[in-house]
Amino acid sequence: MKLATVRTPEGTRAARIDEAAGTATLLDAADVGALLERPDWQAAASVDGRDVPLDGVDYAPVVTRPGKIFCVGLNYRGHIQEMGRDLPDYPTVFSKVADTLVGAGDEIRRPEETEAFDWEVELAVVIGRTVRRADEATASDAIAGFAVLNDVTCRDWQFRTREWLQGKNWEATTPLGPWLVTPDEVGGTRPALTVRTTVDGEVMQEDSTGDLLFDPVALVSYLSTMVTLRPGDVIATGTPGGVGHARRPAVYLRPGQRVVTEVEGLGRCDNLVVADGGDPAVAAVSAAGAAV
Amino acid sequence: MKLATVRTPEGTRAARIDEAAGTATLLDAADVGALLERPDWQAAASVDGRDVPLDGVDYAPVVTRPGKIFCVGLNYRGHIQEMGRDLPDYPTVFSKVADTLVGAGDEIRRPEETEAFDWEVELAVVIGRTVRRADEATASDAIAGFAVLNDVTCRDWQFRTREWLQGKNWEATTPLGPWLVTPDEVGGTRPALTVRTTVDGEVMQEDSTGDLLFDPVALVSYLSTMVTLRPGDVIATGTPGGVGHARRPAVYLRPGQRVVTEVEGLGRCDNLVVADGGDPAVAAVSAAGAAV
Repeated sequence: MKLATVRTPEGTRAARIDEAAGTATLLDAADVGALLERPDWQAAASVDGRDVPLDGVDYAPVVTRPGKIFCVGLNYRGHIQEMGRDLPDYPTVFSKVADTLVGAGDEIRRPEETEAFDWEVELAVVIGRTVRRADEATASDAIAGFAVLNDVTCRDWQFRTREWLQGKNWEATTPLGPWLVTPDEVGGTRPALTVRTTVDGEVMQEDSTGDLLFDPVALVSYLSTMVTLRPGDVIATGTPGGVGHARRPAVYLRPGQRVVTEVEGLGRCDNLVVADGGDPAVAAVSAAGAAV
Repeated sequence: MKLATVRTPEGTRAARIDEAAGTATLLDAADVGALLERPDWQAAASVDGRDVPLDGVDYAPVVTRPGKIFCVGLNYRGHIQEMGRDLPDYPTVFSKVADTLVGAGDEIRRPEETEAFDWEVELAVVIGRTVRRADEATASDAIAGFAVLNDVTCRDWQFRTREWLQGKNWEATTPLGPWLVTPDEVGGTRPALTVRTTVDGEVMQEDSTGDLLFDPVALVSYLSTMVTLRPGDVIATGTPGGVGHARRPAVYLRPGQRVVTEVEGLGRCDNLVVADGGDPAVAAVSAAGAAV
């Protein structure tokens, strides 16, 4: 099953997506987060509702206001090893606030305060049950599904201090979507899926989630040791090599560019970068880029 | 004005506190966060409501589910300098999730997974207006008031990786309360207030918020540069010297101990440490301690 949160004239609505039929069936919940709070949310697979054409659907973040967005740092084995580092014993964890999120087709707002705006494709885990100190089986059962997340980062702010948070928590920078796809459609709760980023069509990142050092089940178990995970909470599992900051010379996102992040079987986020902050020179570049 | 969130048989309620009269006047809002979402929340100073005796009031976290809890690292000049460090150019920021919060008189749950459970008294700022890229005047106006926060930390988990988050995000470890006190009662939005921690009556931390390198107004302005701050959001401004981890030998909290964090004019959080996690040996120590 694929679930989305779509924008309608009356506000956001959860919807069941049928790609073959080209329809989105509107469900009786304000978003996928609200739907997941119902113990019987999986019944959404068969309930009736009004169908709207999938073409032209306006996607909100698949969970509009997650209670938590935990993010994991270096987590792709190959990328860690190519950097000459040892594999870590524990996941490195930081977090985002809900105001960072945008939908799969929304504009990404590049703040005028950064000179180093960078992409990070990630497999996102969405929680479907309330769990604490979950063992592996419980952790696996707590995974409602997966989505694409682009952990867009202001590198200059990320490295201002020793904590990464302030590079990662800018308004309207983080696409989450387009859908939540349940584990049965992608080979279970430890899926091996190709992840990819392109910028204006050029492939920048490409790897497989099968290379994750801490897989989705391990992360749910680890994080739930600390604190209760609840329906709609999100875990971003980290990004592989190929970010702009690590290139020589470094490459960063500019207004007018289009960044596409995709995960095999989960669809894609396709986002135009626009200028945010009111700097007229930057805004002019943005307008020109958008018109191309 | 002092505002609190109190527990009643029908759920939590915002309340106006009158210490002289010894009463809490129940207001028409589920918590202080919901109250602050109303543009006219300051009218709570004069509205009528049912009075209950202040003695025996059961305090919930003053904002029960903040949308954001940003926390600042080293921020007391004296403490930074005594550690031999240079004063930083930027605040170091991490975050907590709402599930970490407890009320001013609640038990603090020491997880069995830590061997290094430590205190950190902090001045907490509570936001009262929606702001983005706030200049100093706007940032000052956005401060609804202040409260006491104890940023209880699992030091072993804090230093497992380079990001502090996982030492700071344990369930039911972080008292926030007892009240929100408006700036007019403490000398404005850059107050110089004594902060203090005692453990079983022994003074462990004592300093003044006048020594903050990044004061409340500066922090609201800085953080709002990144992302919109909203009513009920919380900023913990950092802790002074005297934490258990920096003592020689190090001292950590044990079940059965009572940790009191207080800020001049803002009241105190007085919390019993109890064992959490089901380890029978630790639970026995907790029960014995609680019975003393």
